[in-house]
Amino acid sequence: MPETDAPGVLPIALDAMGGDHAPDEIVAGAVQAVREHGIPVVLVGAPRPLAEALAQHDATTEIPIVRAEEALAMDAGALASLRRPRSSIAVACHLVRRGEAGAVVSAGSTAGIVATGKLRLRSQHGVLRPAIAVALPTRPHPTVLLDAGANAEVKPEMLVQFAHLGAAYAETALDVEAPRIGLLTIGSEPEKGNKIVKRAHELLSAAPGLDFAGNVEGHDLLSGAVDVIVADGFTGNVALKTMEGSVRFAFAELHETIMESRTARVGGLLQRRRIRELHRRLDPEAHGGAVLLGLNGTVVIAHGAARAKGVSAACLLAARLSAHGVVTRIGERLAPARRPHLPW
Amino acid sequence: MPETDAPGVLPIALDAMGGDHAPDEIVAGAVQAVREHGIPVVLVGAPRPLAEALAQHDATTEIPIVRAEEALAMDAGALASLRRPRSSIAVACHLVRRGEAGAVVSAGSTAGIVATGKLRLRSQHGVLRPAIAVALPTRPHPTVLLDAGANAEVKPEMLVQFAHLGAAYAETALDVEAPRIGLLTIGSEPEKGNKIVKRAHELLSAAPGLDFAGNVEGHDLLSGAVDVIVADGFTGNVALKTMEGSVRFAFAELHETIMESRTARVGGLLQRRRIRELHRRLDPEAHGGAVLLGLNGTVVIAHGAARAKGVSAACLLAARLSAHGVVTRIGERLAPARRPHLPW
Repeated sequence: MPETDAPGVLPIALDAMGGDHAPDEIVAGAVQAVREHGIPVVLVGAPRPLAEALAQHDATTEIPIVRAEEALAMDAGALASLRRPRSSIAVACHLVRRGEAGAVVSAGSTAGIVATGKLRLRSQHGVLRPAIAVALPTRPHPTVLLDAGANAEVKPEMLVQFAHLGAAYAETALDVEAPRIGLLTIGSEPEKGNKIVKRAHELLSAAPGLDFAGNVEGHDLLSGAVDVIVADGFTGNVALKTMEGSVRFAFAELHETIMESRTARVGGLLQRRRIRELHRRLDPEAHGGAVLLGLNGTVVIAHGAARAKGVSAACLLAARLSAHGVVTRIGERLAPARRPHLPW
Repeated sequence: MPETDAPGVLPIALDAMGGDHAPDEIVAGAVQAVREHGIPVVLVGAPRPLAEALAQHDATTEIPIVRAEEALAMDAGALASLRRPRSSIAVACHLVRRGEAGAVVSAGSTAGIVATGKLRLRSQHGVLRPAIAVALPTRPHPTVLLDAGANAEVKPEMLVQFAHLGAAYAETALDVEAPRIGLLTIGSEPEKGNKIVKRAHELLSAAPGLDFAGNVEGHDLLSGAVDVIVADGFTGNVALKTMEGSVRFAFAELHETIMESRTARVGGLLQRRRIRELHRRLDPEAHGGAVLLGLNGTVVIAHGAARAKGVSAACLLAARLSAHGVVTRIGERLAPARRPHLPW
């Protein structure tokens, strides 16, 4: 297996055919990533439309194209993705596997990306289950939530591994030293939760190399109480979507409230720019997307509706994770856990 | 078992000793409920301080006191509550059981209320597990979410019953005809979710007397897509607290944004009243609190930090549920489910 985390030299393999606005917005995002962030990018997909799109940006010589004639549909499930070994996402994974790219970025179907990534890149040695991590818009730095949906059923041991995956994310991409870990459940006392969470609490409390801060609850997703929040993929996904929906709801209600009266409307106009900036900061696209952690290579899952800005943010996140060696860091973190202390 | 849902005549048994601001704010809430909403209330607790508090409102003749010398601590768990058969919450439950009150309201510890309610009022015939329902601030009418935390572990059959409990709540307290039911999970397709949810989807699809609209996701909590959202108590609790935390976060960020610049601040002042009104509408206290459904009597769990306004809103909700016969309605809804159609 080649070293896939060589700092800052390998390009990002960008799946140009995945996403609601592929390939045009994906190509535009690649151009932004190269020109604004200095990130080398390789586009993977059907050469002709990609060449045409690149020509429109006068970027033909800046961004190479790697041929992949097939593409996964946005509603492709795990099975469909396995039947297409030459899909753009599969080819992008192969570039990472062969050491020709540092990380994969795709705005395609999450189920398709997860299935393809697991098959083509395989789990890192010792990883029970890869997990999807997302960065929540807390300050001063984002909070990592995982698993956000890759594993609807888990065992307690997997939650401990998720803690290590999330800690490696926080350490490498967010520059957090000794990340504090919280376990998402329904009360602060250790005995609060379902059976799996209660057992995970015991395991996390005893796990070496983890700064376990104890249980956290739903309102802690955005409180910044911890750096990493661990959950099974069912709970994590519900919590993430609830958070997104609730923030959207609050802004919509606020907008309506402001528009209802003239005095308030005048007030609203005066602060429109500020509110727009805030809205942008809370926008999931701004953070580049979700990351599939635990494979022999980094896979960033951009929002399916991502436009150029979202795609370039995803490339930036992928480049940072790759350059700071998140795969290596996960390997280091899980290594001692794999070797129990023996009494001789 | 007496009829506990006789419309609009029985008083609310208000636990005057439960809550962070008991007994003063509880008594003030009782006075509000009586004077502003015309709801008869009985205060349950230590007679002397209650009599003094009532005197301060000149309400001595308006609100009777029922003696209960003990009270549960705010951090009381299930066990502690069972050891105190003469606690104010236990006595309040007895008033309902004996047909002397229509419903219980308490701002005490949720665990204590749930344990006491289950022991003193017992589950309705055919109810597998009582559940906690909350009303989410959607428009034109609230969305009922349950279970919000009474059952961290469930079986698929319980989720079907929760649908009936929630439907009865929507029909009686919110005037929703033929409530649409959604199952909280991680994707719209029937096969999305964990094992319990997938089996519950099958059962709900086949259940008579339920308008099952299919799966809903986290962002549907506040979208108004359905009238009742069903979840296990672990997921429901995490989702509810995530929603509350996210709305609070959005408002806090907004406030900070408005205060950061002078232009925006002037704008903020112009709309302060509107925003305050909105904040109030989204305030969980305004909706009276959570309801423990499935017992032989209605129990409303007011917010632990509830002040007079929250307590009177809880009494209003309890009176509405009691007057519209939520207990009877649940019995009717579950009756056909208990008697399978036989082929002769």
